[in-house]
Amino acid sequence: MRKEITVVGAGSWGTALASVLADNGHQVTLWMRDPKLAEEVNSKHTNSKYLPEAKLPESIVAVTDIQAAVSGKPIVLLAVPSHAMRQICRQLAPFLHKDVLLIHATKGFELESLKRMSEVIMEEVPREISGRLAVLSGPSHAEEVVNRQPTTVVVASEVEESMLRAQDLLMNASFRVYTNPDLIGAEIAGALKNIIALGAGMSDGLGFGDNAKAALLTRGLAEISRLGIKLGALPLTFSGLAGVGDLIVTCTSRHSRNWRAGYMLGQGKKLDDVLAQMGMVVEGVRTTHAAHALAQREQVEMPITSVLYGILFEGKEPRQGVEELMGRGKTFEMGYLNPDGT
Amino acid sequence: MRKEITVVGAGSWGTALASVLADNGHQVTLWMRDPKLAEEVNSKHTNSKYLPEAKLPESIVAVTDIQAAVSGKPIVLLAVPSHAMRQICRQLAPFLHKDVLLIHATKGFELESLKRMSEVIMEEVPREISGRLAVLSGPSHAEEVVNRQPTTVVVASEVEESMLRAQDLLMNASFRVYTNPDLIGAEIAGALKNIIALGAGMSDGLGFGDNAKAALLTRGLAEISRLGIKLGALPLTFSGLAGVGDLIVTCTSRHSRNWRAGYMLGQGKKLDDVLAQMGMVVEGVRTTHAAHALAQREQVEMPITSVLYGILFEGKEPRQGVEELMGRGKTFEMGYLNPDGT
Repeated sequence: MRKEITVVGAGSWGTALASVLADNGHQVTLWMRDPKLAEEVNSKHTNSKYLPEAKLPESIVAVTDIQAAVSGKPIVLLAVPSHAMRQICRQLAPFLHKDVLLIHATKGFELESLKRMSEVIMEEVPREISGRLAVLSGPSHAEEVVNRQPTTVVVASEVEESMLRAQDLLMNASFRVYTNPDLIGAEIAGALKNIIALGAGMSDGLGFGDNAKAALLTRGLAEISRLGIKLGALPLTFSGLAGVGDLIVTCTSRHSRNWRAGYMLGQGKKLDDVLAQMGMVVEGVRTTHAAHALAQREQVEMPITSVLYGILFEGKEPRQGVEELMGRGKTFEMGYLNPDGT
Repeated sequence: MRKEITVVGAGSWGTALASVLADNGHQVTLWMRDPKLAEEVNSKHTNSKYLPEAKLPESIVAVTDIQAAVSGKPIVLLAVPSHAMRQICRQLAPFLHKDVLLIHATKGFELESLKRMSEVIMEEVPREISGRLAVLSGPSHAEEVVNRQPTTVVVASEVEESMLRAQDLLMNASFRVYTNPDLIGAEIAGALKNIIALGAGMSDGLGFGDNAKAALLTRGLAEISRLGIKLGALPLTFSGLAGVGDLIVTCTSRHSRNWRAGYMLGQGKKLDDVLAQMGMVVEGVRTTHAAHALAQREQVEMPITSVLYGILFEGKEPRQGVEELMGRGKTFEMGYLNPDGT
């Protein structure tokens, strides 16, 4: 059934999700700040800034007025950068319909508060709305999604009806949507995987082999699971699309910004030079900061995150960091079930 | 402490493990059938047949007499092809010391019986020996291990002392050994991952993107976990080095034979031509056969394995197979906890 849906945020991911929803026959409004980009989306049906290669469905209507974008809409999907989430929610909260279904597709923590995106949203929109919130996560390069390449994602919510509705809206022949009740786990896995992508790039940049990278991904998964479990996630979410799946796509694709930043660090470049050369936010760097603080607050052992923090912010040499990881004491593989990693 | 250890099998993996043990100061005997190869190992300290690039530790002693190789030895490590395991165990069983620690490093099932390697070993050697058996698994290209590139593996046994002894013998600065009590899970994960590697190669060969491959690996992991759990494995083993870790290294490395065979199938080649061109055993093809039979016997839903079986043995077109996978009904992500996958 055709629904009115507003996507908030016209970066690559928001634009790709708007395309999926339009492909499914829904009436999609896409909100963005930039009037020029909105004009381009409406007249040329392209987004040359964030998805330069793609042709967008002509039915997508771009707008720049947030009130017009969300007022009275039954479904709103948020796809904005993590650092902008709170301010945008504060802006749109007064206009949300009381029965609206909110879905968010943003990976990351709020740095200052170390809060998950759903916690930030919950603080800014009325409780009866945030209680129905669903999160979308999983292995999904936007460039492939907009080209209708086969993709799978997971939709998680604490409310079964919310996740089933989100699944219904988004699923089609090339975009397969699984459901999962673990909202916390899906958010944490999606955010923390960027740390491990940095480390995987670093391992490649140092010239280590496939065994080392697989070790880093697997043990990285173990430690992000350990933190996630302490923060209330279900262990098995980390074995699913939001965990392993997203980890694989981010750590093995040369298109990943986090992998590339890590690669340059492994080759001996300094963080400031890497960030200057990238010219964009590298989420993994911000997330390493957040995870390191969370690990200390929660007293969870995260050896890879700790070594990466040392390399990024304390001048540790990458090669020395890897040697420290290999030289740890003998451990039990299932140690991530215990917070101290033993 | 220096131990006498015999490694049975001088393929790439057996030779690499013999090198690790020799590096650790143990007195290593390496058994193989081929007298010429034994002569080469003893005189030139190379194995040009299976690890052409590597220089082996000079202390390794190659022998071809199985009785001399294992008689009275306190530790025997088996690294032979899965189809040869039963016959070799039958040959060496009469000469094993009653207190010997057996470790095996072979991934696969016995095709006719659908038994795991430890079940095969258990039927051929005295019960008091097989009761102490440990298995070695994890993401480990032999070529990297023999060159002392950083590598992590897992040692699993139902007997804690056995796995701790195996860990002590093998661990060093570049070869990190974790322990895990789940022998069944480590064996099943190591064997079944080759099926998913075939599928990953096929996805790449068909021209699908990184999202599709990550989906295949993640959902593949879900279905091999589902079968493993039904056969007595612990779910979390599949998130560890023998599961996710080995899956990543096998599915993303172009050196993997299984990936390469899948790639050629995806490009439209026929199985017989692919096997002829490879000129070697492709374990994933044998394992698909075994897993398909096990899934039927255990009534476990394995959609990816089933599609691959259709492509390999029943003439199904690869592209049609992928479309079938994407077109399945809406499902719950944690479905792999239930045998029917719902």
